[in-house]
Amino acid sequence: MAIKVAFIGAGSIGFTRRLFRDILTVPELRDTRFAFTDINKRNLDMVTQLCLKDIRNNNLPAGVTATLNRRRALEGADYVINCARIGLLEAFKLDIDIPLKYGVDQCVGDTLCVGGIMYGQRNIACIHDFCRDIREVSAKNALFLNYANPNAMNTWAALDEGVNTIGLCHGVEGGWRQIANVLGVKQQDVDIICAGINHQTWYIQVICKGRKVSSGELLEAFERHPTYSRTEKVRIDVLRRFGYYSTESNGHLSEYVPWYRKRPKDIKKWIDLSSWINGETGGYLRECTQGRNWFKTDFQNWLSAKDKPISPDNRSSEHGSYIIEALETGRRYRGHFNVRNYGCIPNLPQDCIVEVPAYVDANGVSIPRVGELPLACAATLNASISVQRMSVRAAVAGDVTLLKQAVLHDPLTAAVCDPEDVWQMVDEMLIAQAEWLPQYRRAMPQARRRLAAAKRRGDYRGTNKSQGAARLPVKTVTQMRKRAAEHRRQAAAADKAAEQREKDARKATGK
Amino acid sequence: MAIKVAFIGAGSIGFTRRLFRDILTVPELRDTRFAFTDINKRNLDMVTQLCLKDIRNNNLPAGVTATLNRRRALEGADYVINCARIGLLEAFKLDIDIPLKYGVDQCVGDTLCVGGIMYGQRNIACIHDFCRDIREVSAKNALFLNYANPNAMNTWAALDEGVNTIGLCHGVEGGWRQIANVLGVKQQDVDIICAGINHQTWYIQVICKGRKVSSGELLEAFERHPTYSRTEKVRIDVLRRFGYYSTESNGHLSEYVPWYRKRPKDIKKWIDLSSWINGETGGYLRECTQGRNWFKTDFQNWLSAKDKPISPDNRSSEHGSYIIEALETGRRYRGHFNVRNYGCIPNLPQDCIVEVPAYVDANGVSIPRVGELPLACAATLNASISVQRMSVRAAVAGDVTLLKQAVLHDPLTAAVCDPEDVWQMVDEMLIAQAEWLPQYRRAMPQARRRLAAAKRRGDYRGTNKSQGAARLPVKTVTQMRKRAAEHRRQAAAADKAAEQREKDARKATGK
Amino acid sequence: MAIKVAFIGAGSIGFTRRLFRDILTVPELRDTRFAFTDINKRNLDMVTQLCLKDIRNNNLPAGVTATLNRRRALEGADYVINCARIGLLEAFKLDIDIPLKYGVDQCVGDTLCVGGIMYGQRNIACIHDFCRDIREVSAKNALFLNYANPNAMNTWAALDEGVNTIGLCHGVEGGWRQIANVLGVKQQDVDIICAGINHQTWYIQVICKGRKVSSGELLEAFERHPTYSRTEKVRIDVLRRFGYYSTESNGHLSEYVPWYRKRPKDIKKWIDLSSWINGETGGYLRECTQGRNWFKTDFQNWLSAKDKPISPDNRSSEHGSYIIEALETGRRYRGHFNVRNYGCIPNLPQDCIVEVPAYVDANGVSIPRVGELPLACAATLNASISVQRMSVRAAVAGDVTLLKQAVLHDPLTAAVCDPEDVWQMVDEMLIAQAEWLPQYRRAMPQARRRLAAAKRRGDYRGTNKSQGAARLPVKTVTQMRKRAAEHRRQAAAADKAAEQREKDARKATGK
Amino acid sequence: MAIKVAFIGAGSIGFTRRLFRDILTVPELRDTRFAFTDINKRNLDMVTQLCLKDIRNNNLPAGVTATLNRRRALEGADYVINCARIGLLEAFKLDIDIPLKYGVDQCVGDTLCVGGIMYGQRNIACIHDFCRDIREVSAKNALFLNYANPNAMNTWAALDEGVNTIGLCHGVEGGWRQIANVLGVKQQDVDIICAGINHQTWYIQVICKGRKVSSGELLEAFERHPTYSRTEKVRIDVLRRFGYYSTESNGHLSEYVPWYRKRPKDIKKWIDLSSWINGETGGYLRECTQGRNWFKTDFQNWLSAKDKPISPDNRSSEHGSYIIEALETGRRYRGHFNVRNYGCIPNLPQDCIVEVPAYVDANGVSIPRVGELPLACAATLNASISVQRMSVRAAVAGDVTLLKQAVLHDPLTAAVCDPEDVWQMVDEMLIAQAEWLPQYRRAMPQARRRLAAAKRRGDYRGTNKSQGAARLPVKTVTQMRKRAAEHRRQAAAADKAAEQREKDARKATGK
Repeated sequence: MAIKVAFIGAGSIGFTRRLFRDILTVPELRDTRFAFTDINKRNLDMVTQLCLKDIRNNNLPAGVTATLNRRRALEGADYVINCARIGLLEAFKLDIDIPLKYGVDQCVGDTLCVGGIMYGQRNIACIHDFCRDIREVSAKNALFLNYANPNAMNTWAALDEGVNTIGLCHGVEGGWRQIANVLGVKQQDVDIICAGINHQTWYIQVICKGRKVSSGELLEAFERHPTYSRTEKVRIDVLRRFGYYSTESNGHLSEYVPWYRKRPKDIKKWIDLSSWINGETGGYLRECTQGRNWFKTDFQNWLSAKDKPISPDNRSSEHGSYIIEALETGRRYRGHFNVRNYGCIPNLPQDCIVEVPAYVDANGVSIPRVGELPLACAATLNASISVQRMSVRAAVAGDVTLLKQAVLHDPLTAAVCDPEDVWQMVDEMLIAQAEWLPQYRRAMPQARRRLAAAKRRGDYRGTNKSQGAARLPVKTVTQMRKRAAEHRRQAAAADKAAEQREKDARKATGK
Repeated sequence: MAIKVAFIGAGSIGFTRRLFRDILTVPELRDTRFAFTDINKRNLDMVTQLCLKDIRNNNLPAGVTATLNRRRALEGADYVINCARIGLLEAFKLDIDIPLKYGVDQCVGDTLCVGGIMYGQRNIACIHDFCRDIREVSAKNALFLNYANPNAMNTWAALDEGVNTIGLCHGVEGGWRQIANVLGVKQQDVDIICAGINHQTWYIQVICKGRKVSSGELLEAFERHPTYSRTEKVRIDVLRRFGYYSTESNGHLSEYVPWYRKRPKDIKKWIDLSSWINGETGGYLRECTQGRNWFKTDFQNWLSAKDKPISPDNRSSEHGSYIIEALETGRRYRGHFNVRNYGCIPNLPQDCIVEVPAYVDANGVSIPRVGELPLACAATLNASISVQRMSVRAAVAGDVTLLKQAVLHDPLTAAVCDPEDVWQMVDEMLIAQAEWLPQYRRAMPQARRRLAAAKRRGDYRGTNKSQGAARLPVKTVTQMRKRAAEHRRQAAAADKAAEQREKDARKATGK
Repeated sequence: MAIKVAFIGAGSIGFTRRLFRDILTVPELRDTRFAFTDINKRNLDMVTQLCLKDIRNNNLPAGVTATLNRRRALEGADYVINCARIGLLEAFKLDIDIPLKYGVDQCVGDTLCVGGIMYGQRNIACIHDFCRDIREVSAKNALFLNYANPNAMNTWAALDEGVNTIGLCHGVEGGWRQIANVLGVKQQDVDIICAGINHQTWYIQVICKGRKVSSGELLEAFERHPTYSRTEKVRIDVLRRFGYYSTESNGHLSEYVPWYRKRPKDIKKWIDLSSWINGETGGYLRECTQGRNWFKTDFQNWLSAKDKPISPDNRSSEHGSYIIEALETGRRYRGHFNVRNYGCIPNLPQDCIVEVPAYVDANGVSIPRVGELPLACAATLNASISVQRMSVRAAVAGDVTLLKQAVLHDPLTAAVCDPEDVWQMVDEMLIAQAEWLPQYRRAMPQARRRLAAAKRRGDYRGTNKSQGAARLPVKTVTQMRKRAAEHRRQAAAADKAAEQREKDARKATGK
Repeated sequence: MAIKVAFIGAGSIGFTRRLFRDILTVPELRDTRFAFTDINKRNLDMVTQLCLKDIRNNNLPAGVTATLNRRRALEGADYVINCARIGLLEAFKLDIDIPLKYGVDQCVGDTLCVGGIMYGQRNIACIHDFCRDIREVSAKNALFLNYANPNAMNTWAALDEGVNTIGLCHGVEGGWRQIANVLGVKQQDVDIICAGINHQTWYIQVICKGRKVSSGELLEAFERHPTYSRTEKVRIDVLRRFGYYSTESNGHLSEYVPWYRKRPKDIKKWIDLSSWINGETGGYLRECTQGRNWFKTDFQNWLSAKDKPISPDNRSSEHGSYIIEALETGRRYRGHFNVRNYGCIPNLPQDCIVEVPAYVDANGVSIPRVGELPLACAATLNASISVQRMSVRAAVAGDVTLLKQAVLHDPLTAAVCDPEDVWQMVDEMLIAQAEWLPQYRRAMPQARRRLAAAKRRGDYRGTNKSQGAARLPVKTVTQMRKRAAEHRRQAAAADKAAEQREKDARKATGK
């Protein structure tokens, strides 16, 4: 019988359509029944129209239903894919702007650091509801594929809820291609083992045509690379100090550790403004904002556009469709997934969510033991994991003190703020994001009182007026029109960094 | 560059030649350099002649060298395969016959129970030397593939020695085919996950054409099977009580647990004499003795025989060549291997050797976490693991008391003997096998004194005269000549139970 | 404020009164409020009368209330002491007699083996209710002191219920005194560390006047002891084989291991009939039966008897009152308690209940890490722990198959029975004890059908007519009258083996 | 027979004499044989003269020998006490002054942060030698009592060497008295459980007269305390944020965490200059320098001074003598010691060194399981533990990269420096301390080349000229003469913060 795949947050149009098309490239899955749900009717309608068009144009037996009633969408689902972004860009903007008032200058802000922690608070309240519904109405042992960030925290919370969950991210791909690129070979000539936590995974083994590549060789190759030596300064410095290349993009990585963004004057030394992902203050927020604005204008064109056919040649490398294919057909797949550690990396805590290689086939999802990480890599990750654990538990319990302790221990925040800064900043964020934080409802009055009192006694700390050390303005739709094709691709992309990586890679290989 | 594969105990002719031929079926490995070593010059010469003939006949670039100097054979080896059988049939006979004097009636006796424990003592002294040589002269991180029994104990000892080791056994294959057989489908339609310890592994997940097969369904299918319902009574009873089918053959399984062989009158209810593997007293000893005798007579015919060509069609399902292929070419392989547990099965001890699914490719050997075994399966295995741990440590230290405690805790022995029986039986075995037990050298005089004293005081316990509840006579060469082809195949087989399984399977499917 | 101590199963008169009197010997606890509850009104009345008499005679400010309403008794209790015996002697008799029909000959049968496992089934259903009440109405973090057997299983279940529980037993004391005795010194000259599981604890360190006593020295001392060499044959043999003396009495120990009681003819070699505890078939059942009968006749005399005053001189060595004293006054106490392992003994499972040294003072109950047990001790315990885990989970879930698997893995049972014996025996016991096993209610009809079917097809296994290899008749009240004082003491004793130990000890030291 | 106690680094005069006198207050230990060793002959002579004087004056049977030959001193020793300070004040000054050039402003600098890490490098090379000698010539299972800082790292290294080691510190005492003080009760009315790592231990349970004291109550009591509210600002802020009071003094604590000392302008807000321990830059270095200078001048007076008699009334609360007493006499002792974690605190790594409550008696040293620490406490400790692990392994292996990674992850350093700062700072420290770092000998030429290259290319980072945000000048001997008695006491003290604590306490209680 045809499988049923439900999408929560299906209104994430680029993402939903990407995975929808990927799944339909698998011959055995051409009759998949898709169920889309979202709280935003308009986006839900749009993605549904686009997908129905895909079905028609490709003459497929698949079906799509759309509903605002989440429970109905999840009913009997074999797979549930989460790409919800709670609070949308409105809340995201607060994740960037309030911390800036306290001196914390983030690039992406959706994983760790103050923004990521708050994003986790918003998401986990919903994850709780999603999981209850999955347990109650989806197929027995339905697989929950979480794409929503902060991926590790969300996956952690979902597994705590007893739902069979895998956190998915395309993070490992980009660096893999870069490594092949600097080594001057094709990606398929390079075998990699990545291990760590989402967005802080390390290439702990790189085998190029059967030969292990040493840290020194890799460092040298990156240092002499014309593009990356300029755009990936943080990553290359981390490779230099730790001996391992990180999966994470330059700007994103810089906000997880205390060394590169703690003082405005430092930031510019390490970032590159040629792409939002390389370190720009609030870069991802700007990119998403532009994408949303562009899409609103451009949607009618999408509906009439001539799309590529749904075929294996046009399948993306997002893990989702490959996992479903492997489980349903037995075709073996290897990818890097986010799962409960359980000793896979013995020098990280048992309970944390690691991102590690996995094999999938008809027997299920197999998570091999990776072994101990190098000590310095583990040290950096352990610091982040402590923050994640406190964040997840705070989010579940609505525990303001624990939330503040989480932020207090965030490496970049700790290098910028003192405890009172953190206490006020968190209060201010709770108040500003109250509508998405039902679990903190009862704590709000006190937070308001505390913040007001600080202001009264002249000890309010959020007085930084800077827009960030490396802020770029949001392009207007008019500006974007000049490069319409590019912006359309970007707005439609599931992975918004993909195109930039592609470009860099092309530049690098001289093609 | 061509890889080098060394065989220790290469004189295990059937086994060595099988793996040698398997490896040469892989296009990229046709130039493999083989190095054979053994302490038995005659067998070493014989296997070398046969393999050189294979190279000639198949026109291959591979090379074979043979040497009595183990260290030379191991020099620079990328893979070291151990198929040594320490003490040969001479010691093996003692493993069966002495315990019989104390009432312990074994079928195979090479894994656990008194015979297996003593076999481990003989092997582990050698494993220690093998490992030292591998560390010192083989390629860095050379992979040690141990085929020698008792597999779990040997692998345990080799890993303790710091050598990169995998224990290999074809045990999972046979039951897999039986399961397909009783379900009336092809083996490739059944996906299995086996987990446990070597020779006591359980089919914990059976998926037939995408559908999970329940315990009840499997039990019913076996119970109504015309052959297996008669030949596999112990295995079916274990499936009935535990809910899981065991990988181990009927007779072998019956000697690991206390329920089926503890009293002579019980044994016949549970065994079947149509094949040595189904429970015959000393069945494997008889088979091996016949094979050896036959081979001596028949060798010249082998040299002149026309063999099948070396080709993928004639490749066996032994894991060894597939592992090497996967590591060298990156072609992905899945098999069930013996490795250190390390939390793979959380309700077995961390340090034990488990047999579990693994994936191999250019990234290395990946051991996925299996999760907890059902409580009763784990209980049975834990009892065996305690015995293995004591046996391994006794073997390394030459600790007689610990060795006796190991035997005392062996489930079948404990259901037959009292402590004084065990103490005397172990003393008697140490004395009889002294030549293969250098680590116990200093303990021998006392053992002799103790046994003599017991006899003097009229308390000698080894007074059972029975040849076993189900003993068959060794066939003479003359008798075997009547079915020469069959005995030749059997003598040449790596897996001596394979043909019988094949026959049963054919019978069962009516082909 | 005065503390409140509740007794569940207060009708265990000897026990309740003993602890009641002990607590009142502590000056700070003289105003303790006792709440007695039981389901047996008559026994409850009797113990209450005796305790009120104690309060009067000793002129104490303490209070006693008695109620059939357990919840009322537990309300606000700081300490809850469980000495309930579910099913009383009626069920206990079945625990002994039914297994005998299948060849399993038990001495005590309240801890492991078939009797202990079934006793656990009866208790754990009640433990569940006790714990719910404690969580709901007792003082926050009330301490549950479980004296009821099977102690490890009951404690395991109570801790699983989330109640702060310690399992208490006087087991360590007896052997400690024996050790001092054979070494020819006073008990206070010997320091001991015991570790293991309840009723299978090992004296892993014996320090006599500052000097460690070796296994050999201890063995020799026991072997030449005039009494113990005769009465403690199993324990001495275990010391000989394992190197460590066991806390458990000779007969009790013999039923936990497969070596001494598996065949009727063996049993008499190992036991001694001078005391029920040394191996007599159903010895404890006989003793308890006599005690109950005697008490019924003799109760009026107890009420009028002149008792010893409540004073430190007359305080027993039961841990209960010392724990309460330590927690309430801060006076430091060291004893051996039953607690969740959690790595205290790293080579036993994390989740099992270990009996280990503990320190108690105002900071709470502190459980030090003991470290690894010797391998053979650990092997024996691991076998028992597997049985306990299955028994506890079966009892909680009412899972008949798991219960049978528990019995199947019991070492003595496994050395006597085959799987079908076990399956029938458990069915027969479930049916016979149905009134105390509410959790198995729904499984009863099938059990009845299965047993009837076996009988119909002539395969009923419970056909052993023997009353056991070492059975003594229950003494009549008339017989007991001849040694009335002794029987009174025995009937009133909390620890029914204490007097015998005392006698042996006196004999041994020539006093 | 009299025990033998050896002191390594016996030239730490105040410390050695303090423990020597403490031990002699125990009646059973009056005949102890002391063996003093040091590499500094002058100090060794001085302490020996003082101790011989103590023996004479108190008319004791004890003996003292002194030798520059460490191995001779350790021969047959039952207890070995380490109070060596490798590099003395000469190296210590570099631990403070070089980091200051890179902006890292330490108060004590002997535990973590750059100074503590380098101190660990110097010590661990020696610990390795001490341990070899103990294993080879001391009594079997001799107990190594390490008082030398960095205590956790040294203890970690010694345990890795296979020596029975306990790390001892008086850290818990001071805060305990403060807590009693702010609660307005005597110390003996307060029961505490402290848990964490050395110098970062938390009062996780405070019971005052049988009642648990809440975080809020304790915070309020400290905030309103006239002295502590001024002198312990960091500790009180940590109590406010974490909910638990820290054992560590204000200044010391401030250098373990990233929040209070990262910018010069912050430091003064949090420290108090009334005592070196409360935050002064290099405060402990100044105090030790003064003590050494004073002692040189004043030694003759010490020899002729009239000392207090050796008696229980004059026994200090240092754990050392109590541990020896407990083990030798069986008198039970409870203290907080540094030991391998092994699951005592399950949410800290198994291999780290924790400081937790322990009980000592004739059975040995018992380390109870503490349970999980609050998440934020554990997060802070985990960060420090990562640094310790890398530091210890770097010290053992002489691994410069790992050493730099350790410093890179130090929370305060990470909040001040970027990676290149750290790389240069460590190179500079290695070069400056080369004489005490034999394990890094081969790495020195490269370190020199790297630093020279950085200077050549104008990228040398150690350009901060500040003497620290809160530096006080070293008092001259002339200045000290004005308060000679106080300086004499201070120079003689084992615990140089004790007197200040005493003073504060007196002030606080108005006595």
